[in-house]
Amino acid sequence: MFIVADNLNITNPVIEKAVSTLDPEPVREMVRACEVAGADAIDINSGPLTRDPQTRMAFLVESVQSATDLPVLIDTANPKAMEAGLGANRKTAIINAFTLEPSRLDSILPMAKTYDTDIIGYLVYPNGHVPPDAADRLDIAVELYTECHKAGLDKERLIIDPIIVPIYWQNGTSQAMEILEVIRTLPDLLGFPVRTMAALSNFTSDGGSKEKKRLLEKAYLPMLMASGLNMVMMNVLNAEITAIARVCRTIAGQRVFAWEG
Amino acid sequence: MFIVADNLNITNPVIEKAVSTLDPEPVREMVRACEVAGADAIDINSGPLTRDPQTRMAFLVESVQSATDLPVLIDTANPKAMEAGLGANRKTAIINAFTLEPSRLDSILPMAKTYDTDIIGYLVYPNGHVPPDAADRLDIAVELYTECHKAGLDKERLIIDPIIVPIYWQNGTSQAMEILEVIRTLPDLLGFPVRTMAALSNFTSDGGSKEKKRLLEKAYLPMLMASGLNMVMMNVLNAEITAIARVCRTIAGQRVFAWEG
Repeated sequence: MFIVADNLNITNPVIEKAVSTLDPEPVREMVRACEVAGADAIDINSGPLTRDPQTRMAFLVESVQSATDLPVLIDTANPKAMEAGLGANRKTAIINAFTLEPSRLDSILPMAKTYDTDIIGYLVYPNGHVPPDAADRLDIAVELYTECHKAGLDKERLIIDPIIVPIYWQNGTSQAMEILEVIRTLPDLLGFPVRTMAALSNFTSDGGSKEKKRLLEKAYLPMLMASGLNMVMMNVLNAEITAIARVCRTIAGQRVFAWEG
Repeated sequence: MFIVADNLNITNPVIEKAVSTLDPEPVREMVRACEVAGADAIDINSGPLTRDPQTRMAFLVESVQSATDLPVLIDTANPKAMEAGLGANRKTAIINAFTLEPSRLDSILPMAKTYDTDIIGYLVYPNGHVPPDAADRLDIAVELYTECHKAGLDKERLIIDPIIVPIYWQNGTSQAMEILEVIRTLPDLLGFPVRTMAALSNFTSDGGSKEKKRLLEKAYLPMLMASGLNMVMMNVLNAEITAIARVCRTIAGQRVFAWEG
């Protein structure tokens, strides 16, 4: 399981200021901290970037890649920002994300072909809403797969994000278990070992004490892993969650096991 | 997921002394502590009981049942002790366990019919050794199921323990993942929702620092749960592991979710 850092986020005031002043050092510092903490990739969550989307996303990609060789996920719904980010990329970039929403489908999906990148597809309805169960998510996965094929992409380019929802939602616990089923079922359904990614912090994105959130994330991450999740997006600077992610990899035989400590 | 306390164990010197002097109070104290900590059942692990097996097991069952109404698992390979425990039972008892080892098969399995109890079957070879993979474990599960049928038991009486092995073993990580597969596969293979139980502390029963062991158990328990485990035997007096078990149940919708804390 790969760990994708969700820490480089425009909602962090330090990063927001770095972007608006085009100062690369705070971005580099964050990226270096994530890499030291164990990130295998960096999500660049720029938000909508209503002002200067091209300049700002290019700045972000360049700043990150001046500090690390890790793959970057370009995480924006703004097609102009996405294209600028892909144009600025000099290492490995992944598109995060397309959906069946007509605007994203028409503008973002073709960029995966043009720029020869992996692309993450979200299991949401064409109106952007989140399905309530596994059955609808799996239908959407088949549609995303079909759209990738129509766009001329190799199927291996597709990564699927089932969209974790907050457990405090009325159907939150049922959604949590349905998502595990989706992750388990997708490779058989699509007929190849399709990769999956999920954003752990969505699980606790509203409500609850810090301690409660951490406990929920520490329990749900191994469940996702046991169901076959390939990539988890998470706060890599939280040492407790990162320790659980590492020990999950040990248990799954993904790292040499050592009785350190 | 039910939590079975593994704390009432003859290897604990306090319990060993209580048994040899037939003093019920230390046993009652342990049982009350386990119930308060969240146990749903109490495993009575008496060891082989080479001296006075009948008297001592009857004493244990009576002492436990004088302190709690929780089900008890009678955990011994000694048929005389098992029979005495079942005879002394006045509430709910579960036989832990039978195997394909001829001595256990012939002596212990019939007691489930006689005393009308659930019975746990271990996925080990007739020589008592642990299989290296899922395929052999599943073959053994079918044989246990067949033996239960031959003994005239309702199939719902069978609970299967896949036998967790220490992760430090040479094939420990592969065994860890094979066991998850076994738990996922058993209900389909046997054609009914067969219950499963596993002993979490086996996972770390040798080597490693306390901190490392706890981390491994905290990560593996949600994996077992996500794979469908029905009962986990564990140290319920370890608050960290018990907190993870509780939050796993919350995520799986097995308890009303509350944002306490």
